[in-house]
Amino acid sequence: MDISQQWEDFLRDATEEERDVASLFLHSLKRKRDGVNGTHIGALMEIKSEFQEPDTLTMEIPNTSLLQNSLDILHGGLTATLLDSAMGTLAFKLIPEDKAAVTTEMKVNYVAKGVGDHFTCVATVIHKGSKLLVMEGKVYRSDGTLIAHATGSFFVIPKRS
Amino acid sequence: MDISQQWEDFLRDATEEERDVASLFLHSLKRKRDGVNGTHIGALMEIKSEFQEPDTLTMEIPNTSLLQNSLDILHGGLTATLLDSAMGTLAFKLIPEDKAAVTTEMKVNYVAKGVGDHFTCVATVIHKGSKLLVMEGKVYRSDGTLIAHATGSFFVIPKRS
Amino acid sequence: MDISQQWEDFLRDATEEERDVASLFLHSLKRKRDGVNGTHIGALMEIKSEFQEPDTLTMEIPNTSLLQNSLDILHGGLTATLLDSAMGTLAFKLIPEDKAAVTTEMKVNYVAKGVGDHFTCVATVIHKGSKLLVMEGKVYRSDGTLIAHATGSFFVIPKRS
Amino acid sequence: MDISQQWEDFLRDATEEERDVASLFLHSLKRKRDGVNGTHIGALMEIKSEFQEPDTLTMEIPNTSLLQNSLDILHGGLTATLLDSAMGTLAFKLIPEDKAAVTTEMKVNYVAKGVGDHFTCVATVIHKGSKLLVMEGKVYRSDGTLIAHATGSFFVIPKRS
Repeated sequence: MDISQQWEDFLRDATEEERDVASLFLHSLKRKRDGVNGTHIGALMEIKSEFQEPDTLTMEIPNTSLLQNSLDILHGGLTATLLDSAMGTLAFKLIPEDKAAVTTEMKVNYVAKGVGDHFTCVATVIHKGSKLLVMEGKVYRSDGTLIAHATGSFFVIPKRS
Repeated sequence: MDISQQWEDFLRDATEEERDVASLFLHSLKRKRDGVNGTHIGALMEIKSEFQEPDTLTMEIPNTSLLQNSLDILHGGLTATLLDSAMGTLAFKLIPEDKAAVTTEMKVNYVAKGVGDHFTCVATVIHKGSKLLVMEGKVYRSDGTLIAHATGSFFVIPKRS
Repeated sequence: MDISQQWEDFLRDATEEERDVASLFLHSLKRKRDGVNGTHIGALMEIKSEFQEPDTLTMEIPNTSLLQNSLDILHGGLTATLLDSAMGTLAFKLIPEDKAAVTTEMKVNYVAKGVGDHFTCVATVIHKGSKLLVMEGKVYRSDGTLIAHATGSFFVIPKRS
Repeated sequence: MDISQQWEDFLRDATEEERDVASLFLHSLKRKRDGVNGTHIGALMEIKSEFQEPDTLTMEIPNTSLLQNSLDILHGGLTATLLDSAMGTLAFKLIPEDKAAVTTEMKVNYVAKGVGDHFTCVATVIHKGSKLLVMEGKVYRSDGTLIAHATGSFFVIPKRS
């Protein structure tokens, strides 16, 4: 059966919540198609990224049901995804164009519940070496409370051609 | 405009890849509706969880385009999501029924590229205290190569009633 | 044989370097006796601690041969000792008098060689909860270069009476 | 005044505990002179190291007052020193002779009090790459209880000639 037909069938009996999620999914596919986000997970999280000179990168995401664990709190893994994305994107900004940066390790401390309207992640530089970059990332909720702190190492490698 | 109509419009011009992802999204909503997964991110990752006596928990996920970063490799944040889910689920198994466990910190070492057919995460116990549990998690790809290693701390708290 | 006699015998044939270390050891015992440091390792490292309102603690140590690894660089373990001491001492300052704080985890990123005249460690607060404190620590060498960055968790427990 | 004379003066009024520590210090200088340990901190901790084929390294240390924090428990920093030493020594064993390995990061989880007669550290390999090695370390007390768990990254560099 055609996927379009399958969606129609599913949505006929869908709850309000399911229709909202179906809408988030469709929105995510459009963001990916339009190049707003380069990855599906970035599109699902609706990541907006902003680089600030000289060495800071900010990412903001709305809080949606897609991000929540069974306690309706931002899933710790998605907090880590946001942190890894922000620190990694900043690392890419800071290395030569013919290089790539891969995460070799990341540690996250979770210090408060992820609730509220949206989340903001701020990535900064701890150390910028020619072979290894060490980054710091912090995630805040809309009321300004810090919910997670991370440090991560990014190894500089030649870019795949 | 109705969400069902919006999906139909989008899918009319969709690429093969977009139709595949639309299918994964629909599959995910069905897994959530049927209670196969308790969270949307678990359903999107198609997590299958298995507890083994006395103290091991295994999670398996297929490798889909939803999980990949811009280099077509398993996103480090989703690796962390899998690890946090497996270690956290194991923590819940090991504490009294009137308690909950929250992740206070997690560190992941990324040691090989996440590629291949599926990924398997194995969570085990490093320390089981009455207030704090320390867990270990490992993620393997289908060919048996270890791709990530994690340790995490889980704080035991009273369950919300 | 009496320990005093043993020292005399050893020092009779000692090299210049050994006499210097013997002097550091004696100095350390005096610091401990005079209460300048509360622990032998603190006295050996000649830790000087300074608390700054509201939430910062600084520790300074001279660079001596006692601290060096086989490459004549500050031993990573002693860097960790300095960081744990500074973050832990700060944690103690910030909790009620009838409580103690124990390190539950610490992660250190080593980013430059520990060489030079002395080292300065600065500990600050990431999160101050009633049960868990998360601290940040940085170690600098005399020329101002950051050599290590740490985060650590400190669990608040009742003080032993 | 001569260092030998200074030791004599100090020891004349020394407590039993101070004489014991003076003896540990002298013992440490002898271990260093005899090449039993390559570093002062290794000699002070009386580290005995044993490599087991193919990929395990064990270090054992006696529990002495030199190692204890103000609560008479093994200092978390010295636990880290033991772990870094064991993991680093194992890393050196596993790389080509013209290479060196430097610690780029280490995370330690402290899970039980360090008390008892002696401590044993076991280092094993998580990942052995050509540029980066990831190690695991565990510290046990004499009664077999795990007191600390660590993971660490070791970067392979050309040896200084």
